[in-house]
Amino acid sequence: MKSRNKQQSIKIDPKTNKNPNYYYIHARVWIDKGDKSFLGRGRIDLLELIDRFGSISEAARAMKMSYRHAWELVDSMNQQAPQPLVKKTTGGKGGGGTQLTPIGKTILTLYKDAHEKIDTLLLQLEKKLNTEFQKLKE
Amino acid sequence: MKSRNKQQSIKIDPKTNKNPNYYYIHARVWIDKGDKSFLGRGRIDLLELIDRFGSISEAARAMKMSYRHAWELVDSMNQQAPQPLVKKTTGGKGGGGTQLTPIGKTILTLYKDAHEKIDTLLLQLEKKLNTEFQKLKE
Repeated sequence: MKSRNKQQSIKIDPKTNKNPNYYYIHARVWIDKGDKSFLGRGRIDLLELIDRFGSISEAARAMKMSYRHAWELVDSMNQQAPQPLVKKTTGGKGGGGTQLTPIGKTILTLYKDAHEKIDTLLLQLEKKLNTEFQKLKE
Repeated sequence: MKSRNKQQSIKIDPKTNKNPNYYYIHARVWIDKGDKSFLGRGRIDLLELIDRFGSISEAARAMKMSYRHAWELVDSMNQQAPQPLVKKTTGGKGGGGTQLTPIGKTILTLYKDAHEKIDTLLLQLEKKLNTEFQKLKE
């Protein structure tokens, strides 16, 4: 076995779940209305959970935030969008709840598509970067 | 003239250089080594200016940071990369200076390409989003 294998052994740090010698490329995507923040990762996660659970309080619990805080975030998004992203429903099987409006679903899909495309692109670049860096060590 | 044109008039706020009713999609890209931050927008800007001016002190001045701070950033990058990204040169026409190494240039190009591709993608999505939002107002 060549001695360089010692240096290059891939070890995942169990605390961080990362290989401390690997270079990771990350991106954060957010949407502003004018110069004011409108939607970022946290709010998108909240929308996604509201869509899943049909309930702001369930979504808030899953995100370990208060109902009040979740509602304020929803209210802020609703006011900034041209139409509300989230609406209360009344009656029906579960006795009412909360759901995304069509525009809420549109924007959730658009954001997730964008992030998926970006992550795919960055994963390719990440591999390229690590391959080139690896060559320099050999 | 239809009355809705009043609402939809495009006004750029001179202070922010943004249309307050337009939705802007942004992305930030950064590279970590393991779980430690390695390179982000600020450090990339610094590398780019070092590449342009051939001088850390000129680059620092352009970024309105102290030479000492710029040097610490360069030193941190150099230590985290498999080989230094920036090196001092001695002699020559200008009596020596600082320049990017081939790996420094490679990573600068890779980061800028990544950001350019992402910005192109986001610009398309931004147009799509604003078109859809505009329809909802009509």
